[in-house]
Amino acid sequence: MPSVLWILFDGGGDRPSGGKTPFYVAFKPTIDYLTSLGSCGVLDPVSPGVRPGSDTAHLALFGYDPYRYYTGRGAFEALGADVALKPGDVAFRTNLATVDDADVVLDRRAGRYIAPEEARAVEELMSKIGEEVGRRYGVEVLYKSTVEHRGVLVLRGAVSHKVSDTDPHKVGAKIMQSVPLDNSKEAALTAEVVNEITRRFREASREMEVNKARRLQGRLPINAILLRGGGYMPHIEPIRERYNIRAAAIAGVALIRGVARAVGMDVYTAPGLGGTKDDVFDNAVKLAVDLMSTYDLVFLHVKGTDSTSHDGDFGGKVSVIERLDKALAPYLDNLLKNYVVVTSDHATPVSVREHTGEPVPILLYGPDVVADDVGKFSELTCWRGALGRLRGIDVMPILGSYLTLTEKFGE
Amino acid sequence: MPSVLWILFDGGGDRPSGGKTPFYVAFKPTIDYLTSLGSCGVLDPVSPGVRPGSDTAHLALFGYDPYRYYTGRGAFEALGADVALKPGDVAFRTNLATVDDADVVLDRRAGRYIAPEEARAVEELMSKIGEEVGRRYGVEVLYKSTVEHRGVLVLRGAVSHKVSDTDPHKVGAKIMQSVPLDNSKEAALTAEVVNEITRRFREASREMEVNKARRLQGRLPINAILLRGGGYMPHIEPIRERYNIRAAAIAGVALIRGVARAVGMDVYTAPGLGGTKDDVFDNAVKLAVDLMSTYDLVFLHVKGTDSTSHDGDFGGKVSVIERLDKALAPYLDNLLKNYVVVTSDHATPVSVREHTGEPVPILLYGPDVVADDVGKFSELTCWRGALGRLRGIDVMPILGSYLTLTEKFGE
Repeated sequence: MPSVLWILFDGGGDRPSGGKTPFYVAFKPTIDYLTSLGSCGVLDPVSPGVRPGSDTAHLALFGYDPYRYYTGRGAFEALGADVALKPGDVAFRTNLATVDDADVVLDRRAGRYIAPEEARAVEELMSKIGEEVGRRYGVEVLYKSTVEHRGVLVLRGAVSHKVSDTDPHKVGAKIMQSVPLDNSKEAALTAEVVNEITRRFREASREMEVNKARRLQGRLPINAILLRGGGYMPHIEPIRERYNIRAAAIAGVALIRGVARAVGMDVYTAPGLGGTKDDVFDNAVKLAVDLMSTYDLVFLHVKGTDSTSHDGDFGGKVSVIERLDKALAPYLDNLLKNYVVVTSDHATPVSVREHTGEPVPILLYGPDVVADDVGKFSELTCWRGALGRLRGIDVMPILGSYLTLTEKFGE
Repeated sequence: MPSVLWILFDGGGDRPSGGKTPFYVAFKPTIDYLTSLGSCGVLDPVSPGVRPGSDTAHLALFGYDPYRYYTGRGAFEALGADVALKPGDVAFRTNLATVDDADVVLDRRAGRYIAPEEARAVEELMSKIGEEVGRRYGVEVLYKSTVEHRGVLVLRGAVSHKVSDTDPHKVGAKIMQSVPLDNSKEAALTAEVVNEITRRFREASREMEVNKARRLQGRLPINAILLRGGGYMPHIEPIRERYNIRAAAIAGVALIRGVARAVGMDVYTAPGLGGTKDDVFDNAVKLAVDLMSTYDLVFLHVKGTDSTSHDGDFGGKVSVIERLDKALAPYLDNLLKNYVVVTSDHATPVSVREHTGEPVPILLYGPDVVADDVGKFSELTCWRGALGRLRGIDVMPILGSYLTLTEKFGE
C-alpha cells in the first residue's frame, strides 16, 4: 500500500520581490524533480484572500472547516501548550500582570519577561488555588505557563465559555468581573469560578517569594492574572473516522502538535526539529519515511520558513527550504513509489513579515498523478499546473481518493 | 501606503463573435501593459452561470453575499433613485398605470412615456397623500419618480415588507388588495397603508391637471399606482468595519451610487461621467488618482460598455474601453506603484443584448503580484492567468490582504 508524505512549509508562501520568491530561488532538486513528475496548483488555505493563522489553516488542511471547528483562541492556545483538552473543556488565554492596590492594571504583562523559575512558582500557586476553588465548585482547574507572561487556564466540568473576560485589555483600567453571557447555570458557575480564581491569585501572589526578588531587582511584581478569549474544545471526529486515514504528524511547534492531536493524529517529534530556523531535518525525514510503512499519511511540519519570514530574512528562508530538500534526497527512490504533497499553510511574505491571504503553491506527486508542465515548485510557476486553484479543505479528500480509503458518495 | 484603483466596466464581459470580443480588439495599451505585469483570471460575479443584475453583482464585488443582502428589488431600486434609505425602511417598486372604472388595468405603464412635468405632478400628489396617510397611521411615506412610468415608494416606521403586491402583473386584471403575509401587526399596518395610498391616488389622480392634457392629446391618463417587490433595507455593516478599508466610489449611475452608498463607501462623481456611452473619462480618472492618496480603495464605474451592449453596438463598446484606457495613460507611473484591478460586473454580450452568466476577465496588478504570461486583457486570454477562477465575493478579501488591512483569522 502506498502512503503519503506531506511536507508543509509554515509561512512558506511569498510574494515576488524583485521578481523572485524563496521557493523560486531555492536549490531544491528533489522537490523540483517530484514537481516535474506531478501535478501543481495554488491553494487558498481557507478561502481566497483570507489571512489565516497557522491554527485555522492547519484545521482546514487536515480537513476540518475552521469556521465550524475553530472555537476561539483559548482552546487552541491550550492545545498549543500541550495541554490535553477534552471536548467541552473551556480554556482561557491568560496574562500575568501587575496591578495597583485598587486593582487598576499597571502593566498587562508584568514587564513581559518571566523567568522559568517564576513561571514554575506561578504554576505551583495556581495549582493550589485551582485545587481549592475546584473542590468548592465541583470543577477541575488546570493552569500552565507557556511563553513569557502568557499561559492557559482550563476549566473542566459543567462549565461554559459564555462568560466575559476579566482582562480589561488596557492599562489604567480595573480588573473586570467576569459575568455570564447567557442564562445557563454553567455560565453562571464559570463566571463565579473565574472571579474566585482571580481574587485568590490577587491575594496569594503578593506573598510569592519570586515577587520579593523581583521587587529587590526593581522589577514589576506578578500580582494578578487576567483571563480572556474563553473558548471551548469542540467535538472533533478523529481523522481516522472522518477520512479512514491513519495519520501521523511530526512537528516541533506546540500549536501544530496541538491541532494535529485535536484531530486525532499521532504526534511525533525528532531530534533537530525544535521549530526554529536552525532546525536540522535529517532525523525528522528519516522518521517520516519510517512511519510511512505504518501510516497512510505522514505530515511533516517545517517551521523555519515562517520564523525567517517574520524576521524579513529572505536568505534564511531559502536556506530552510534547501536543507529540507537535501534531507529528502536519500529517500527519493522510496518517495517515487508513494505520494508526496508539498505546500504551505499560508503566505508570510518576507517583505510583509506577516501572514497574508495569497494562495500558496501546492505539489501533488504520485506514480499515477497527471504530470503537468510545471518543473519548479514556486508561486511563480505552480499556478500553471493541472490542479488549478484549490482550497485547504480539499486536500484530505483528494489524498483519501488516491489512497482509495475514503467512502464513495452514492452508488 | 499603496492603494487600489479598481476600474469596473459595467457589462464589459462579452462572448466571441467572429472569434473576437470588444476587450480583445480594443486598443488599450495602458491596461494591457499592466496586464503584462500582473495576474489575470476569470471571475464569476455571483457564481458560475448566474446572470447577475448590476445591483447583485456590485454587492458581491463589494464583499457582501447578495443572497443575504439583496432583500428585494424595492430597496435597491430606491437606493438607485438616490433615496437615502435607513435600515428597516420598506420600499416598493411602483408603476404609474391606467385602469378603467372597475379598477381593471388597461395599461401597466400608462403609455410608458411620462414627461418630466407629469412626473413632478405625480410626486406632488403623492407627497400630499403620503402626508395625510402617514399622519393617520403613524408612518413616514416617501415617493420618488425615477424613469418613465417607474418610481419608488418608501415606508418608514413600524412597517414590514411581508405584504403582497397591489400590482396584478397583467393587463385585464383588477388592482389587487395588499394583504399581510405574516401575523405581525407591522405587516397588517403596512398592508392597510398600501391600500389606503392606492385608493387615495386612484381618486385624486382623476383630477390631476396633467391628465386633462393627456386626454386632449389622446394619451392614456395616469390614474393608478401599482406597487410590487416590497423589500426592506438590510442592515449592512459598512465596508470600513467589515474589511477595514477606506473606500470611495466614482459613478454616474444612480443604482451603482446607491449600492456603493449602502455599503458605506463615499460616493463621488465627476464632470463627463453621466453614465452613458458618450462619457468622457479624463476628469473621473484624475479624481480617482487624487482620491487614491486619501482612500485605500477607489472604485471607478464605467457604464458605457453596458449601454452599448444593450444596443448591440460592438464598435461603441470598443470605443468606451479605448477612451477609458486613454484617460489612464497619463497616470501610469503613479499606478505602477499601487494596485490596479480591472474587471466587469457581468457579461452583456453585444450579440445577446442582455446580461449573461459567463465569467468576466479580471486583472490584478501590483508591484508584488505574480506576473503571469497574459499580456492582453480579454475573455480570450485571461483564463490562462495565475488567478485562476474566482468569485465576486473573493475580491475584497484579496485586496484587504494585499493592503494588509484585514484581520487575521486565528493565530
